[in-house]
Amino acid sequence: MNAHDLSTTLVPSDLYLEIQQFYALQLKILDRGDGEQWARTFTEDGVFQAADMPDPLVGREILVKAIERQSARHEGLVLRHWSGQLTVERIDDDTVRAQSYVMVYVTPDRTLLSGEVHFRHHTLCEDELVRANGTWLVRKRFVETDGEYK
Amino acid sequence: MNAHDLSTTLVPSDLYLEIQQFYALQLKILDRGDGEQWARTFTEDGVFQAADMPDPLVGREILVKAIERQSARHEGLVLRHWSGQLTVERIDDDTVRAQSYVMVYVTPDRTLLSGEVHFRHHTLCEDELVRANGTWLVRKRFVETDGEYK
Amino acid sequence: MNAHDLSTTLVPSDLYLEIQQFYALQLKILDRGDGEQWARTFTEDGVFQAADMPDPLVGREILVKAIERQSARHEGLVLRHWSGQLTVERIDDDTVRAQSYVMVYVTPDRTLLSGEVHFRHHTLCEDELVRANGTWLVRKRFVETDGEYK
Repeated sequence: MNAHDLSTTLVPSDLYLEIQQFYALQLKILDRGDGEQWARTFTEDGVFQAADMPDPLVGREILVKAIERQSARHEGLVLRHWSGQLTVERIDDDTVRAQSYVMVYVTPDRTLLSGEVHFRHHTLCEDELVRANGTWLVRKRFVETDGEYK
Repeated sequence: MNAHDLSTTLVPSDLYLEIQQFYALQLKILDRGDGEQWARTFTEDGVFQAADMPDPLVGREILVKAIERQSARHEGLVLRHWSGQLTVERIDDDTVRAQSYVMVYVTPDRTLLSGEVHFRHHTLCEDELVRANGTWLVRKRFVETDGEYK
Repeated sequence: MNAHDLSTTLVPSDLYLEIQQFYALQLKILDRGDGEQWARTFTEDGVFQAADMPDPLVGREILVKAIERQSARHEGLVLRHWSGQLTVERIDDDTVRAQSYVMVYVTPDRTLLSGEVHFRHHTLCEDELVRANGTWLVRKRFVETDGEYK
């Protein structure tokens, strides 16, 4: 992805901030465990692929189920995703490629003493985003966890 | 807070960045332990409420004292606040609600060997901000620490 | 640096985002270990000084070598720099001072099990940046690691 070379033209402020706000919103929805709304941040035929998954998840219905399974595993934990180091490459007026770093933290909830924050993992997130109805949607996401067996 | 639904209209770039820069400045002031200046980032009658505090702190004089007590506890530590995942909801031209994630790190100072960074806690920060004299001020802040006993 | 007082005028959105995008790009180049390209994010006579270095690194050739040495030390690790809490002070149309917090994480790579993320250190980064050929370059960088012996 050439967007990560300095030779690349920086994208305009409005575009950069639309994408930055998109990630802030999308990851908070994920942290709330709201699978239905999270799936609606993807296109109808949106694709989610992680480096360690044998097959990609395709389509909103399957994405909802993936979040429901994840939420069950996170019972008793506060989940927090942070997006940063965003770089954006404009493909055309309605399509961008975006690369971001994502940190994932969990903290045990409902304890008598303050829970210790656990840095679960750090990932690299590469998205193809498309503009639709005044917002942006993920058409294709590829996530790679640092240090994972490849 | 509806600002965290994708259906919400994203706020304009200038507004979003005014708020983002406000947090960068305000949290650096806090990390320097400058209670006087930190209190001036609140309105005269500004309110600070944490989920685990029996009563809110109200007014600049009381806010200054709270920071002085905190600074005393942080003697020998480097304190660092990071703000991220900012979402902004515009109430009117001079009022916004802002929700952010905040990470708090401390590192022991003045040691012969490099200090290890300690992730103290992760919080959710919900602010009502008002525009005044060309800047923004906190009218009301509510902070909740992840994993805290409720 | 006065940029970190609330009395300072906030910088315009376009300028702030040019600098923010610059750091996102520059630190990803560093994480890839691309010394040649990283050196080109400095001016020809660019200066890199860390608080614990007896002498500064001066000029692109020397900067390239420093990254090559660093990359050799990071063999088998995934390196991640996060820039945040950015404040910018405009000196003139083509010069700014920027202060940011930088977190550095490493994760062991090529392991059978997922590697644990290690928070290596937290630093304060103070840059003088100059505009050149439609991009920004570092003329002078001063980095101080939290908790370091001074």
